[in-house]
Amino acid sequence: MALARLRLIRTPGIGPVTYRQLLSRFGDPERALEAVPMLARRGGGTAPAIADIGAVRREQEQVARYGASYLFVDDAGYPPLLAELDNAPVALIVRGDVGLARRTVAAMVGARNASAAACRFARTLALSLGDEGVVVASGLARGVDTAAHVGAMASGTIAVIAGGIDVVFPPENAELQERIAREGLLIAEQPPGIEPRARHFPFRNRIIAGLALGTVVVEAAPKSGSLITARLAAELGREVMAVPGSPLDPRAQGCNLLIREGATLVQSAADILEQLRPIDPSAVRAPGASFDPAPPIDASDQDRRAVLALLGPVPVAVDELIRQSSLAPAAVQTVLLELELAGRLERHAGGRASLIG
Amino acid sequence: MALARLRLIRTPGIGPVTYRQLLSRFGDPERALEAVPMLARRGGGTAPAIADIGAVRREQEQVARYGASYLFVDDAGYPPLLAELDNAPVALIVRGDVGLARRTVAAMVGARNASAAACRFARTLALSLGDEGVVVASGLARGVDTAAHVGAMASGTIAVIAGGIDVVFPPENAELQERIAREGLLIAEQPPGIEPRARHFPFRNRIIAGLALGTVVVEAAPKSGSLITARLAAELGREVMAVPGSPLDPRAQGCNLLIREGATLVQSAADILEQLRPIDPSAVRAPGASFDPAPPIDASDQDRRAVLALLGPVPVAVDELIRQSSLAPAAVQTVLLELELAGRLERHAGGRASLIG
Repeated sequence: MALARLRLIRTPGIGPVTYRQLLSRFGDPERALEAVPMLARRGGGTAPAIADIGAVRREQEQVARYGASYLFVDDAGYPPLLAELDNAPVALIVRGDVGLARRTVAAMVGARNASAAACRFARTLALSLGDEGVVVASGLARGVDTAAHVGAMASGTIAVIAGGIDVVFPPENAELQERIAREGLLIAEQPPGIEPRARHFPFRNRIIAGLALGTVVVEAAPKSGSLITARLAAELGREVMAVPGSPLDPRAQGCNLLIREGATLVQSAADILEQLRPIDPSAVRAPGASFDPAPPIDASDQDRRAVLALLGPVPVAVDELIRQSSLAPAAVQTVLLELELAGRLERHAGGRASLIG
Repeated sequence: MALARLRLIRTPGIGPVTYRQLLSRFGDPERALEAVPMLARRGGGTAPAIADIGAVRREQEQVARYGASYLFVDDAGYPPLLAELDNAPVALIVRGDVGLARRTVAAMVGARNASAAACRFARTLALSLGDEGVVVASGLARGVDTAAHVGAMASGTIAVIAGGIDVVFPPENAELQERIAREGLLIAEQPPGIEPRARHFPFRNRIIAGLALGTVVVEAAPKSGSLITARLAAELGREVMAVPGSPLDPRAQGCNLLIREGATLVQSAADILEQLRPIDPSAVRAPGASFDPAPPIDASDQDRRAVLALLGPVPVAVDELIRQSSLAPAAVQTVLLELELAGRLERHAGGRASLIG
């Protein structure tokens, strides 16, 4: 099972959304894997090169060697809040106590070049949140992230890294990363050996925001990764909180901007708890709920033509395609899946899709 | 006319609300003055001691000697936004350009012991607001108030003082106060010679908030007069804005608290202008509108008994009295006026009233 899941998600062109579609359509990853070539053909393209079984086995061996394990989006132990995301990472690679991600999690992020005062403040906040039973998640970057992890170390902290589980970044955090793997929870989405690159950070940020009921920003420049994490949290309907600063302090600009945009101004752990507590845990979707039986409907050529006619280079909402085509939702999803596997469709944020080329 | 108005408002027990009621009932101040003893008798008490004509004449002479003049709430030149208040001061004593109060006014208030950086920031903000044609009102206190007046001096500033028009406070602002009287607008509510006391400051603050479309707070302690001004502004439905600061800076606590309570975080004159501009000037009530003809209805003994039965030591809304008594609004108002002049009724914020004793 794990092998088939991993081969699916390591196949180029099969992202989290397609993975979920395939599993929803075929019930199990092995049948999905077998169906990919046929679906791609129906979508009018050539089948993607399924991930090599040998390469995937070698990845599994590496993960085991690093003392890590996989957590699949359809596993019961998968972080429940993260499973809420449409594009929840299919295979997390984790070291440490996965139970931490099932407790109340607050994300705390901020500037890498934060002031000493801000770092001390972040550490104290994290410590106080820990005292109240809140697990603090961050990105193991320099500055505020490091301070947040250090402050929350005794009570429980989750570090999400942009590269592979075995790759240390930044170098000076080697010891902290190892300590979190042993005493907290270390999470990577990239396979082992992958060095973190600029494009990996937004994916890392979405995991941080997705794990948490709310995200707190401590010192951030207006165009920083921290603000991206905050905006992702807002898009997910999670709480966004920011610690204010003087307009005369350039490092406060991002936080002040967030507050102007509607983030809650927070000055203490009590302020943060006040924002986290009102959320009803029953409102959180159980993991795997997105795999509820959707009757596997085959699409007809007529369906394919109808959906294709509605698609173009401008992303359009799948809901809109269903409405305008008057087809069964499952039929529309099938056509989109075929087109995607054929390399002709691109998925976008907010459940939208566009034709390629 | 001015003499009768002044005698009315200088009579103990006749506040702004009663004054308006009397004028609305009798059309002119002389007839109102004559009617006071009769109304008080009907209210079941002794008539208040009408202000001595000689004392009021001496006050008028003093005001003239200081180069000041009166601005009555029913004068056409009265500041239109201030006239909106239920308890708008009846007689302002002013020096300088009363036209300033008819332009777009922003109030700027803050800590007397503000940091040098905050004072510099307030001065720059006021200067930039002035450049955009906004008149800056403040309270001529030390610190932020002084900085706001200085910054806005060239473009137009209004200082509202807690004592009499001739009383300088704080002493080091003597020159600034005189300069505002000559180049801006200086406003006092208390008669000449009155030294500012603690109880005068909330009245001064309500005038500052009342003159302005919005109030900006720059550095304020959590229980400061600046926060009172901000809350008065909020009660009046005006914009409340605050400049944030670090949670580590005690002088930022009041502003951060205001922002948590819903005030708009502002960092620049542009942020302030954005809040001031959306207000539709046509939504502002013309001065004197509250003196629109209300048919002078005499109350019967039955009416008096009905209203008295509904009153008690707990403040109740006048609207509620009207609803529950099923009497004509004017009749209820008449009974309340009589009771008040008889010293048996106290008026409260939000159009409420209670029996005394």
